[in-house]
Amino acid sequence: MTDNDKKAIVLFSGGLDSTTCLAMAQAQGFAVHALSFSYGQRHSIELDKARRCAAQLGVDRHLVVDIDMRAIGGSALTADMAVPKDRPLDDEIPITYVPARNTIFLSYALAWAEVLGAFDIFIGVNAVDYSGYPDCRPEFIAAYQNMANLATKAATSGDGSYRIHAPLLHLTKAQIISAGLELGVDYAATHSCYDPDAAGRACGRCDSCRLRLKGFAAAGLTDPAAYVEDN
Amino acid sequence: MTDNDKKAIVLFSGGLDSTTCLAMAQAQGFAVHALSFSYGQRHSIELDKARRCAAQLGVDRHLVVDIDMRAIGGSALTADMAVPKDRPLDDEIPITYVPARNTIFLSYALAWAEVLGAFDIFIGVNAVDYSGYPDCRPEFIAAYQNMANLATKAATSGDGSYRIHAPLLHLTKAQIISAGLELGVDYAATHSCYDPDAAGRACGRCDSCRLRLKGFAAAGLTDPAAYVEDN
Repeated sequence: MTDNDKKAIVLFSGGLDSTTCLAMAQAQGFAVHALSFSYGQRHSIELDKARRCAAQLGVDRHLVVDIDMRAIGGSALTADMAVPKDRPLDDEIPITYVPARNTIFLSYALAWAEVLGAFDIFIGVNAVDYSGYPDCRPEFIAAYQNMANLATKAATSGDGSYRIHAPLLHLTKAQIISAGLELGVDYAATHSCYDPDAAGRACGRCDSCRLRLKGFAAAGLTDPAAYVEDN
Repeated sequence: MTDNDKKAIVLFSGGLDSTTCLAMAQAQGFAVHALSFSYGQRHSIELDKARRCAAQLGVDRHLVVDIDMRAIGGSALTADMAVPKDRPLDDEIPITYVPARNTIFLSYALAWAEVLGAFDIFIGVNAVDYSGYPDCRPEFIAAYQNMANLATKAATSGDGSYRIHAPLLHLTKAQIISAGLELGVDYAATHSCYDPDAAGRACGRCDSCRLRLKGFAAAGLTDPAAYVEDN
């Protein structure tokens, strides 16, 4: 908790990337308002971990918004489809892609920012070690920011300009991990797996696990998170 | 219902504007997929009317998505604030403004469009007889369309380009009503009031009612909708 009135909204899943992004926003002096979504994701254990992780990081507020992505479907993360395992990471956009997910998440962040009088929104997207999702690329972030500044009363009435911060955009996974460790992030508390077991242990084989494990290996470190089996 | 496979998503509240917009999409030959939101609006009677109105218009599908705008608050339409009555219509943006509402609505429409393989999204915004909401202006619609074409797998993989249609943008309310009547819209079935009574009758005094009544008067017509008292 801070007594700073420079507020920022941080999109926060409790995963490796968004937790690092949150720590970066705090390091920049922002009073962090973390925003998570309950969107019918299969890995709902993510939300429990996100709640604990946000508390551990001492955010100013953590809001979990219920949104209904299952009604729309179209993704292995929200519909009844198998999460792919061991697929080549340089292949095409996988079925774990959730249509317009970051667009929807940023739109709620924008709404909350406007209510709070905040103009800074952080999102932990990354266009280096990622799954090729179009809404993780710099041109998307720039176009979103431009739209946000035309969409809202706060921006169009001259109170300020929205800034979408994506501090991980050009970092490798290993660089993200190193930066987070310097800021004191406890990666054992973070959760990245698309398909954890009932005890919340990561599968080690989905895209998200493999990108994470590859990152720790490249940084010369061992991932402290719990996995179903040793990887 | 059509056998046309040229699908469009139409953002649809069951109000005068979105109903006219829907009829226009049908007249252009689109198989209409109407999208409504249950977003904690005070006037939830709107949803019942929207369901009946969509059925009457013979849409291909009508999806109502639950979204939680109350968690975010900030508007007389979603929080515990009084809806203003009889205020000057040329005044500043009123407290019925819902932060980032059209941004959020369009983002769900974009997600559903991507799942359906549709590229056309209709929104009944109007920048002539309106309440001054920034997300009803042409520059917002253009910026949203630009962002949408960078956000999605469907657009970035070359399957097509999203088009945000806003056919009412430059029409007066009287012109919207005339156009709708030519297309056979039954305005008695539409509902615009921000603060109806328990029987669903319109108040006649909120911005939305007054813009509507002014439109019928300018078109030399009487509004067939039910009001609390004669206006």
